[in-house]
Amino acid sequence: MANKEIPYKIYLNESEMPKYWYNLRADMKNKPAPLLNPGTAKPMTAEELGGVFCEELVQQELDNDTREYPVPQEILDFYKMYRPSPLVRAYCLEKKLNTPAKIYYKFEGNNTSGSHKLNSAIAQAYYAKKQGLKGVTTETGAGQWGTALSMACAYFELDCKVFMVKVSYEQKPFRREVMRVYGADVTPSPSMTTRIGQKILSEHPGTTGSLGCAISEAVEVAVGTPGYRYVLGSVLNQVLLHQSVIGMETKIAMDKYGIRPDVIIGCAGGGSNLGGLIAPFMGEKLRGEADYRIVAVEPASCPSFTRGVYAYDFADTGMVCPLAKMYTLGSDFIPAPNHAGGLRYHGMSPILSQLYNDGLMEAVSVPQTRVFDAAETFARTEGILPAPESSHAICAAIDEAMKCRETGEEKTILFGLTGTGYFDLVAYQKYHDGLMDDYVPTDEELAKFRARLPKV
Amino acid sequence: MANKEIPYKIYLNESEMPKYWYNLRADMKNKPAPLLNPGTAKPMTAEELGGVFCEELVQQELDNDTREYPVPQEILDFYKMYRPSPLVRAYCLEKKLNTPAKIYYKFEGNNTSGSHKLNSAIAQAYYAKKQGLKGVTTETGAGQWGTALSMACAYFELDCKVFMVKVSYEQKPFRREVMRVYGADVTPSPSMTTRIGQKILSEHPGTTGSLGCAISEAVEVAVGTPGYRYVLGSVLNQVLLHQSVIGMETKIAMDKYGIRPDVIIGCAGGGSNLGGLIAPFMGEKLRGEADYRIVAVEPASCPSFTRGVYAYDFADTGMVCPLAKMYTLGSDFIPAPNHAGGLRYHGMSPILSQLYNDGLMEAVSVPQTRVFDAAETFARTEGILPAPESSHAICAAIDEAMKCRETGEEKTILFGLTGTGYFDLVAYQKYHDGLMDDYVPTDEELAKFRARLPKV
Repeated sequence: MANKEIPYKIYLNESEMPKYWYNLRADMKNKPAPLLNPGTAKPMTAEELGGVFCEELVQQELDNDTREYPVPQEILDFYKMYRPSPLVRAYCLEKKLNTPAKIYYKFEGNNTSGSHKLNSAIAQAYYAKKQGLKGVTTETGAGQWGTALSMACAYFELDCKVFMVKVSYEQKPFRREVMRVYGADVTPSPSMTTRIGQKILSEHPGTTGSLGCAISEAVEVAVGTPGYRYVLGSVLNQVLLHQSVIGMETKIAMDKYGIRPDVIIGCAGGGSNLGGLIAPFMGEKLRGEADYRIVAVEPASCPSFTRGVYAYDFADTGMVCPLAKMYTLGSDFIPAPNHAGGLRYHGMSPILSQLYNDGLMEAVSVPQTRVFDAAETFARTEGILPAPESSHAICAAIDEAMKCRETGEEKTILFGLTGTGYFDLVAYQKYHDGLMDDYVPTDEELAKFRARLPKV
Repeated sequence: MANKEIPYKIYLNESEMPKYWYNLRADMKNKPAPLLNPGTAKPMTAEELGGVFCEELVQQELDNDTREYPVPQEILDFYKMYRPSPLVRAYCLEKKLNTPAKIYYKFEGNNTSGSHKLNSAIAQAYYAKKQGLKGVTTETGAGQWGTALSMACAYFELDCKVFMVKVSYEQKPFRREVMRVYGADVTPSPSMTTRIGQKILSEHPGTTGSLGCAISEAVEVAVGTPGYRYVLGSVLNQVLLHQSVIGMETKIAMDKYGIRPDVIIGCAGGGSNLGGLIAPFMGEKLRGEADYRIVAVEPASCPSFTRGVYAYDFADTGMVCPLAKMYTLGSDFIPAPNHAGGLRYHGMSPILSQLYNDGLMEAVSVPQTRVFDAAETFARTEGILPAPESSHAICAAIDEAMKCRETGEEKTILFGLTGTGYFDLVAYQKYHDGLMDDYVPTDEELAKFRARLPKV
C-alpha cells in the first residue's frame, strides 16, 4: 500500500467508516481520576450522576475497561450525513512553506455546526431520546457546541435549552439565529430564570457572563425539570469516547495509504478534539505497538497544561458540578478580555490530564497574534477559513514543518482542523485592525486563582 | 450497476473527476444571441471584448462550437482542494416528507466562499495570471462572488479589487472581513473613486447602491487601469462553461450508480449554477439521447423568466457593458427592499434564455416565505443550513416530492444546493421574527421598467 499516490483529500467509503468508538481508558495503565462529590469528596456514583446525565452516558463516563463501544445504528445513520470527514494532504501549504515535511489535517468543519462538536452532540441526544427524556439543557460560549446540540436535538425531536454566555449572546446574534433555525430555546446567561443566575446577577449586576456560570444554570434547570438532563460538549470521558470517531477515521485512512504520522498535533481547550484525534494512536503507544509524538496546543492566555496545576477542581463557577482531577488554572479563571481565540476553559479533560502527567504527550502554548498569522497563511494556501481554535494547531504544525525545512527531515505531520471561522470574523477583524495583543497572565495572577482551588 | 446500494453521499475519486468543461452551446441548434456593442448595435468583436475581459475568456465567450474544453492542470489542482463536491441522497428529507420520490442534491457549499462561484472564479483568475495581468476587478452584492474571487486571486497572487454594493458592505461586515483575509481590496459602491460612482452619488446622494451600479464601477476601473481586467461571476457564456463542472461531476456520479433523474431543478439568478448543473443533461436532451424535465426556480419578487421579456438589454445600470439578449425585467429593476432571498439580478444568462425560449426548460417562481419554510425543513432534516438562493430549489424540489406523494410516483428528483446560509442570518432572523412579506411587483411596475429597455 505504501506507494499509492496520495490524493488531496481522502474520503473513506461508507463501508470503511468505523463501527465502534474506542475507549482509550481501557489501555491506560494509570486510569483518569474519578469525579468526586463536592460534598463528601467521595467518587460520584452512577446513581448520583444519573440525576444530571442520561443513564447510558453515566455508564460510559464511569467505564474504564470496555475497549470498544459499538456505535448505535441511529448514530451511524446521522454520521453518514456529514461524515466521513476528509483527511487532507496540505500540498499547497507544504509548497508555500517550502518544507520537506508532509502535512495532513483531518477537517471536521464541513457541517453546519462548523466543528467536531456534532460527533458527541448526536450521541448524547440519541441516548436522551432512548431514555424517553423530553429534552436536554446545556451551556454554550461562542456557540459551536450549542449549535451542534440544536442540530442533534432537531433530528431526534428533543427540546433543547441552551444557556449562552451573555456577551456572546449579544455579540454573536448569528450563532443564536442558527440555533433558532434548529428550534432551540436560547437564554442569555446569567439569567433570572435560575437561582444561581439570580444570585450572580444580584452580586455582579453588570456581568457579561462566563462559561462556568452558564454551566451552573444549565445543570440547575436539568436537575430541577422532570424529563430533562444536562449534556456537556467537552472535558468528560464520554465526550472523548464519542470523539474517538475522528481518530478512528484518520487511522483507517492513513493505514489505507500506508501513511504513518511522526507527530500528531491538536488544539486543546477542554480536550474533546485532541482526545478524539489521538485516541487510536495513543492506544498503540500505550500498548507498546508504535510510538508517536503527541502535542497539545493551547493559548498562551489560557495555559492550563503548560502553567496550570494537576489537582481536583470544580468544573463550573457555581460549584454545583462534581470535582474533576485535571490540569487547571482555577474554576474562576477567565482569560483577559482581549483574548479572541477560543479555548477559554479553565481546566482540561481528566483523561488527557492523566496522559500528560504520565509523560505520554507534550504541550505547547502560543500567543494569539501568531495564531492568526498562521490562520491567514492557511486560508490563503489551503482555501479553508479556519476557526481560531483550530488555528492553534495550524500554528504548531507550521512550526514543526519549518523545523523540518531547517533539518531537511521529511517528517509526517498530522493535525486536527476542528472547524471553520465563519462566525469568528470579529476576531479576524481585530487582528486585521491591529487591535489584538498577546497579553499573558502573570505568575502572580495565576497564583491568585490557584489559591482558591478546593482542598481535597 | 443499477442495483448498487446508494450511499448517503457520493464522492468521486480524484481519477473520476471530469477533465474538461462541457460547452453546451456546441449542441444548441439555436445559439444564444451575441453580445452587442451598445454604440453600434453590432456584435462585439474579440478585440472590443479584450479591453474588458482576459483574452482566453473572450475566446471562450464567443466560441459556440468547441464541445469540450480541457481544464488546465493548475485549475484541476485547485479543484482538488474543494472538489469533488458530494452528490447527496436526501434520505432524511424523503422520510420527513413521506414521499416515494428519490431526492438527490449536488452540494456546492463546502468551501470557504460558501457557494459554487469558486468554480468560475479560479478559472478566471487563472487566465488573468496566464496573460500576465496584475489584477482583476469585480462587483459583489451579498459577497459570495467577491469572496470566491478573493480566494482565487490569493491562490494565484493577483490583486483583487471588489466593488461591494454599499448596503451589503455596511450590513455584511463579515463577508467583507473574509475578503480581507484573502487580501482583497473592498470598496463600497457607489464610490468617489470612479466617474460613474461620482455621477450616481451626485444624482442620488443617499443611495445604498445596486449590483448594476457596482458592475459599472468595476468595469470602469478595469478598462482604465493598465494590467487589469474585469471579471463577472454569472450570466456570461464563459461562466456557464466553467460551471459545467457541477453537472459533469453529477452525471458521472449518477451514471456510476445507475441513477437517472426525471426532473432537474436549480435556482436561477443570473443562471450560473443552473446552467452548470444541467449542462450535460441538457446536452443529451439537445442531441436527442435522453429526455429530462428541467426547471428553473426564481423569486416571485424578481421574476425574470416568468414575467420578464426576451430582449436585448444592458447588463448594468451605468450602461457601460455590452447589450445581452436575455429574459429581463429592465436594467434598472431592483427587487422590493423586503426581498431577502438573493437572486436579485434583473436578467438571465443568454444561453438559458435561449433554451427557455425554445421550450427546452420550464421556470417557476416562489414567494420568499415559502422559500424560508423549505430552508428550515431542509436544515432540520438534512443538517445543512442552506443559502436563501439555494432554498428556492429546495422549495421546488419539495413541491415535486409532495406531488409524488399524492400520485404514488417514484420519481427521481435532482436539485442543486448551491451554497450555505452562514452569512445570511439576518434574512433568517427576519423570517423568524415574522418581518418577511411576499410582496410581488405589479404588472404596472414591471411595465414601467420594461418601457426603458434599449431599442435595438
